[in-house]
Amino acid sequence: MTQTTVVMLSTEHPAGALVDATAPLIHIEDQGLTRGDGVFETMLSANRSVRKLGAHLARLTGSARLLDLPMPTEENLRTAIDLALSAAEAGPQTVLGEEHTVKIIISRGTVAGGPHSWVTVAPSPAGILTQREQGVRAMLLPRGHDPAEDSTYPWLLAGAKTLSYAVNMSVLRYVKQHGADDAIWVTEDRRILEGATSSVIVAKTEGEKKVLYTPEPSHGILPGTTQGVIFEGARTAGWELGYGPLYPHDLLEADAVWLASSVRLLAPVTHLNGTPLATDSQLTEKFLGYLARS
Amino acid sequence: MTQTTVVMLSTEHPAGALVDATAPLIHIEDQGLTRGDGVFETMLSANRSVRKLGAHLARLTGSARLLDLPMPTEENLRTAIDLALSAAEAGPQTVLGEEHTVKIIISRGTVAGGPHSWVTVAPSPAGILTQREQGVRAMLLPRGHDPAEDSTYPWLLAGAKTLSYAVNMSVLRYVKQHGADDAIWVTEDRRILEGATSSVIVAKTEGEKKVLYTPEPSHGILPGTTQGVIFEGARTAGWELGYGPLYPHDLLEADAVWLASSVRLLAPVTHLNGTPLATDSQLTEKFLGYLARS
Repeated sequence: MTQTTVVMLSTEHPAGALVDATAPLIHIEDQGLTRGDGVFETMLSANRSVRKLGAHLARLTGSARLLDLPMPTEENLRTAIDLALSAAEAGPQTVLGEEHTVKIIISRGTVAGGPHSWVTVAPSPAGILTQREQGVRAMLLPRGHDPAEDSTYPWLLAGAKTLSYAVNMSVLRYVKQHGADDAIWVTEDRRILEGATSSVIVAKTEGEKKVLYTPEPSHGILPGTTQGVIFEGARTAGWELGYGPLYPHDLLEADAVWLASSVRLLAPVTHLNGTPLATDSQLTEKFLGYLARS
Repeated sequence: MTQTTVVMLSTEHPAGALVDATAPLIHIEDQGLTRGDGVFETMLSANRSVRKLGAHLARLTGSARLLDLPMPTEENLRTAIDLALSAAEAGPQTVLGEEHTVKIIISRGTVAGGPHSWVTVAPSPAGILTQREQGVRAMLLPRGHDPAEDSTYPWLLAGAKTLSYAVNMSVLRYVKQHGADDAIWVTEDRRILEGATSSVIVAKTEGEKKVLYTPEPSHGILPGTTQGVIFEGARTAGWELGYGPLYPHDLLEADAVWLASSVRLLAPVTHLNGTPLATDSQLTEKFLGYLARS
């Protein structure tokens, strides 16, 4: 039995209507399915409030524009999310207490029916708690090319969060077959890019300075909403911020390294290609505090 | 009303069972949909026979292996296709007489349900007849990187035909907004790669020799089953075969250029970035003859 709550937006219900998620809901010729032709956002809801919803809606708007998909109004999306969350809260308790994973998807739909969108609310996967608390073993793997090369050409959809995620899923299967939990993409010259589904954050002490680094987000890397909140909090707290370039030795010599993403929040990287990395649980707690206030 | 016939393969019906395609059939958390995590083949059926089915099943087997998805047995897939075709033939006449588009999809499915696969049979889209007869205006567009760079790393899925086709769909929207019908990918140094959903074939007279060219298929380009049949027929008929590298001037100086794919068959390229290209309807007919016998 599914524990997922689904709200579909439609012409009749532009702000969404609850539908029965135990039944199939998607047409077999939906181009979101047959072509990965759609965009999405994944968010964390804690205590019935979606974290950094504004940043997610802004990124979704950008993704939809790049794919020429209609973006529902922000008001309708917020109403749809509220409806889905209310229904989910009435359901069975989630593994992580009051935490839910909220997704918005806009799909190309069928040729006859056209684009459509929906919101799902589901219990956050149990495995993420382990990754938050015990950290992840990461492998560095080549991305095959520098995504900065894509960013000049709008048809390559750099910066759009699309449903075409087969490679991201593939690399996660690959690292799990090799005893690790997550992948960090690198260019051919070993420059750090991003995680398979996350941003890379690196804390370093440089003389008297505390510096927080992440790879330059304008070079074909999806700007991380979680990384953004942590950087804003750190800046206010007096950290210097840096944008690389970063190489493997920067991670090996760091005070701590994290993979940051909306639902998992912060996963400390405990090993890089099998080599133990320094971790700092006090810093992790501090940064989680920035996220809790977002 | 959908004119699509669907046969679902399942544990209870490993060789497939007809299902009602007017109803939604796919769960909203199917990872084929949420992650583009699946593989497919698209084929042409003419007079109840699927063209070059063996080559498609071989490529599907390779795609499924790269994504670690279970491949149904060939016998079960052939039975499922026969069932879908029989049901489709009993339906309304298709636009292109006895032609149908046949698809096999293997999707990751839901986390709880696991991978599943299905066959669809639908009337071939009406627009392809125009493209076969009147040809296509093509634009050369950069792929952002040379896909040969991906082919060393199995996690990048080079050579797999996955459901993650958002970029291929995006580039087709782009060319249509710019007065063209199709895109031909090029590397940064303008080397010809492939069409958005097709192979590029070039016929040239070189002194006394007739040569048929296509870009080297082992360098990150999906090997085209249609191009393969035409090359085999041409070789038997005394043509020399060449594998490039090809550059835009090779297309501009050719006797004829085609985009080759399974359902559209051969679309003569009439214009490249607005410049008229030579065409040769007798050659087109000859090559269509090779395909009809496949």
